[in-house]
Amino acid sequence: MITRSSLIHTAKSAFSYANDKETLHIRMRSAKGEVEKVTLWIGDPYKWEEGGLDGGNLEGSDAYGWSGGEEVEMELEGSTELYDCWFAAYKPTRKRTRYGFILTDKESQEKLLFGEKKCVPLTDDQQANSKALSHLSNFYCFPYINPADVLSTPEWVKDTTWYQIFPERFANGRPDISPANVEPWGSKPTNDNFMGGDLWGVIDHLDYLQELGINGLYFCPIFFANANHKYDTIDYMQVDPHFGGKEAFKALVEAAHKRGMKVMLDAVFNHIGNESPLWLDVVENGEKSKYKDWFWIKDFPVYPDKPLETWDFTNLNYETFGNVHTMPKLNTENPECRAYLLDVARYWVEEFDIDGWRLDVANEVDHQFWRDFRKVVKSIKPDCYILGEIWHEGMAWLQGDQYDSLMNYPLTSAIKEFFAFDNTDARNFTYDVNNSYLNYPRNVNASIFNLLESHDTSRIISEAGGSKDKAKLSYLFMFTQIGSPCIYYGGEIGMEGYKAMGSEDHRKCMEWDESKQDQDFKTFIQSLINLRKEFSDLQAPSIQWLHVGKQQKTLIYQRGNVIVMMNNESSESTFELPEELAHKPIKDLLTYKSEEFESQITLPAYGYKVIQIEK
Amino acid sequence: MITRSSLIHTAKSAFSYANDKETLHIRMRSAKGEVEKVTLWIGDPYKWEEGGLDGGNLEGSDAYGWSGGEEVEMELEGSTELYDCWFAAYKPTRKRTRYGFILTDKESQEKLLFGEKKCVPLTDDQQANSKALSHLSNFYCFPYINPADVLSTPEWVKDTTWYQIFPERFANGRPDISPANVEPWGSKPTNDNFMGGDLWGVIDHLDYLQELGINGLYFCPIFFANANHKYDTIDYMQVDPHFGGKEAFKALVEAAHKRGMKVMLDAVFNHIGNESPLWLDVVENGEKSKYKDWFWIKDFPVYPDKPLETWDFTNLNYETFGNVHTMPKLNTENPECRAYLLDVARYWVEEFDIDGWRLDVANEVDHQFWRDFRKVVKSIKPDCYILGEIWHEGMAWLQGDQYDSLMNYPLTSAIKEFFAFDNTDARNFTYDVNNSYLNYPRNVNASIFNLLESHDTSRIISEAGGSKDKAKLSYLFMFTQIGSPCIYYGGEIGMEGYKAMGSEDHRKCMEWDESKQDQDFKTFIQSLINLRKEFSDLQAPSIQWLHVGKQQKTLIYQRGNVIVMMNNESSESTFELPEELAHKPIKDLLTYKSEEFESQITLPAYGYKVIQIEK
Repeated sequence: MITRSSLIHTAKSAFSYANDKETLHIRMRSAKGEVEKVTLWIGDPYKWEEGGLDGGNLEGSDAYGWSGGEEVEMELEGSTELYDCWFAAYKPTRKRTRYGFILTDKESQEKLLFGEKKCVPLTDDQQANSKALSHLSNFYCFPYINPADVLSTPEWVKDTTWYQIFPERFANGRPDISPANVEPWGSKPTNDNFMGGDLWGVIDHLDYLQELGINGLYFCPIFFANANHKYDTIDYMQVDPHFGGKEAFKALVEAAHKRGMKVMLDAVFNHIGNESPLWLDVVENGEKSKYKDWFWIKDFPVYPDKPLETWDFTNLNYETFGNVHTMPKLNTENPECRAYLLDVARYWVEEFDIDGWRLDVANEVDHQFWRDFRKVVKSIKPDCYILGEIWHEGMAWLQGDQYDSLMNYPLTSAIKEFFAFDNTDARNFTYDVNNSYLNYPRNVNASIFNLLESHDTSRIISEAGGSKDKAKLSYLFMFTQIGSPCIYYGGEIGMEGYKAMGSEDHRKCMEWDESKQDQDFKTFIQSLINLRKEFSDLQAPSIQWLHVGKQQKTLIYQRGNVIVMMNNESSESTFELPEELAHKPIKDLLTYKSEEFESQITLPAYGYKVIQIEK
Repeated sequence: MITRSSLIHTAKSAFSYANDKETLHIRMRSAKGEVEKVTLWIGDPYKWEEGGLDGGNLEGSDAYGWSGGEEVEMELEGSTELYDCWFAAYKPTRKRTRYGFILTDKESQEKLLFGEKKCVPLTDDQQANSKALSHLSNFYCFPYINPADVLSTPEWVKDTTWYQIFPERFANGRPDISPANVEPWGSKPTNDNFMGGDLWGVIDHLDYLQELGINGLYFCPIFFANANHKYDTIDYMQVDPHFGGKEAFKALVEAAHKRGMKVMLDAVFNHIGNESPLWLDVVENGEKSKYKDWFWIKDFPVYPDKPLETWDFTNLNYETFGNVHTMPKLNTENPECRAYLLDVARYWVEEFDIDGWRLDVANEVDHQFWRDFRKVVKSIKPDCYILGEIWHEGMAWLQGDQYDSLMNYPLTSAIKEFFAFDNTDARNFTYDVNNSYLNYPRNVNASIFNLLESHDTSRIISEAGGSKDKAKLSYLFMFTQIGSPCIYYGGEIGMEGYKAMGSEDHRKCMEWDESKQDQDFKTFIQSLINLRKEFSDLQAPSIQWLHVGKQQKTLIYQRGNVIVMMNNESSESTFELPEELAHKPIKDLLTYKSEEFESQITLPAYGYKVIQIEK
């Protein structure tokens, strides 16, 4: 039996979108294991036995007679814990389509037509079937592929390996511009101390990054601000003087571009710092401030007239980021405030030629603002990358009008649960990974931003209980997925550090003493970066699982024609190879050695292989 | 057992939206009959046992500890063929929410926590339950209620009874401006003949409409065009001279406004007429035309150099509406074309003070255009109504950025299938009606546009095989639903007519000879309009079914505190009254009579009652 209430599809969503100006992608889900085959029944709504002006907009007996349908077999794109997920691509001849799905029951072989308005069994009665299949108004509709609505994302992103820099902690290039209270490089980080990192220091180490293979730099905030993390902006139009000001940033972008490296900045437009002149004006002048409508203020004065320790931070007179009183929320709906922030967006693209904006707390800013933001940024530099920080499901921001893509936290989470925390078995890991592929359109996935650790999280090695082996599998997995991978500074040399209440060790100073860097880890990371550059198959839109261990956490998966094998166990594992691999001649893409597989393989503890079958 | 694969929810959709600037509406669906109770588990993501800056953005062991959740019982909003649909309203204290659903299994009484990332059983292990309920990153997210994104629709719409006028066929007020080839009023309509209807004729009959109770006029196209239906626009900036030009329209709007009547025009921006100067310029000058990019042209010359009869209309050199060569599709993505059409949108609102735009073929125009359209229109007149013609599911246009609401074809279809065509039983009718309530946000439903017939369809009486009784039940049903009902000119006097190949009888001339008007039908319609004016409960956001006949097509449903009873059978039906009504004193809202119900009721063939229980 096909469970009808578990058949899932929505038009104009991750289930139905224009992947480019000619091609629709259609997906649907059925309850797992119930459906043997799905055929997409799709075509031009204006192709009609007679008449034909209705486009599916008829009722009663007039609603029958559509002759535009054609059959497209759907592939099983992946399975999750609950669903089988089906996929097909289709190029409509006249940009318009209506469609339904013909499902074959795995057990009974009975067929069911699933449309927007009804499910209709297809039986031996061919006349009834024809009628059902010509009943256009029951079907789903993707009315027209309007080019303006098609999400177009920068081509370069998929070829990028990012490196995230927390500027205060990466390298101190000019000690003379460090804050007065700077502590020695490598001191224990706290939430308010400074180590003197600056952008000149980044320039000094571009050789290092280039040698590593990096071709995208993603910076935590660099604008003038107080805190070491610079999320409390004072002035969006200034680079922090302790980071070297605009002079250093200009030099940095130029130097990076010369090396073919892209530069992405962090756009913190949800809130501003409490020491920005805009906010201070409101604090001082209250209702008379010309900036009062740039914020969300319930009552004046904005601050209670009592000691800070006694404030009720959950009930301030103004909106904030996360009840943090030092981060008043900006009113992006106010025309002047919006114009100012859009000018900031414009300025750094136009004047400094940056290549991307990462949008901080992107989900709490209004959609209208992001629509305007996209227009401004793309009008100056069409291939500027717009990347949203959204941790939950985010299709509402991915309709072609707002972001190019998202930070891929669902994948981060899947990898950590399986490799670092040992919380899931291999099968559930495949479900989590499949979800990360299936939740978004393929054109979004192609430029999704993958990460294992960041300024917001503990270091992956620490989360893996200090196991560099587990961390290596995590990196290998990330580097062989769709999207672009990011290394958080120092991740490549095995830096550790917990984020926790009272611990800022995930923001430690970069270790530049080579003797203290894990060179083996670095070589490993380098090999992954090279692998990615060498094999564009790693950008394939889907993942196929060739082996999923039942007792052991062993995996074999295929990305294009690259095959990855892993043993996420603390002891060696031996398992049967799938038919595709048994007794096949293969080339190891990391060691460059060739061999012929037997029917089984043994991988050492936390062992892995990346291979191709020799033709 | 609760079928997990049938649990359906998506954030920022018809399942989760801000109904106003303070209130979230949350819905979810479960497979029918499986779930006894659903509790929404919802709260501020920044309320945390310790720390608290994460907003749900943590992983591993750090992901637990949320203390912001509170329980809100969900109501069963309605059931469909496959689902039970649950609803709750919630006002977040700080605009931010994360949430999940706690479901109680009807059979086993076991509880299940359903979140965005996982379903987790809640067991007797209270510690495990607490942990699951504090695992914020598993939950759905409505990140922030940004006022700019909240759909705000005109308040007046819900109090409106519309009257749709096909101007060429409503009334000839000035025979001197009729087309030269005008035929006598009441001639058989064809697809190219003219009867001389004009806007002066409408003005002449405003008394008639006011007496009927109409307070909204919706006009089929009135701009300068060739065809009798005027969908082949020649000039958007002119009212058709045969309709009386701008002079007549200005007088009409003024006269209507004096009577408290709103005026809505048809915006045909998807395509233009082939005799518009813009298109003729392209036909004549080909690639040299300055308007060539206002259209979608594959190749020049746009017309084949052969007789019209031999053209391949499915493969023209230019995009059209529905392969109709006389209706070239406009390129709303071209900046000049867009600016022109937006100026048209502005002009009629600003200069003529119209109250609404009905958007023709709204689904084939790009979303970006409609976003700009909304900005233009609402900036001039915030309570101007923007109504999309979309026959299929249309949430992609209802995110607060494009339309106010849609033409409610799903309700039209439900009503016709049940009352006119006799194709469904009472139970399936309730499912179809429930879907029409459940498919869209309540704020969309509040201003949805209900219709039984139009210039695009056969007349309801004809579709009901000539049965005015069935048509009356159809009208009664429509008038007692959410949204605003519309009468297609002449519907109120029982006009009939088929739309079919070769029949244009749905566009017959209005019958002004009172002896030929069905006065009984008109009185009935009038009573419905009055009922709607008198009882704002008919605008209640949901519908409750108190009785659904199994063998007979009998129904009792409740809208607020108004109760409607119907017998959609050709013979009388007797059935048990539900507990709420048995032996209750009631007032008949149509006859103004009071009575006391017994335990059963008998309704005559096609009988009906509209009542309230007397307090």
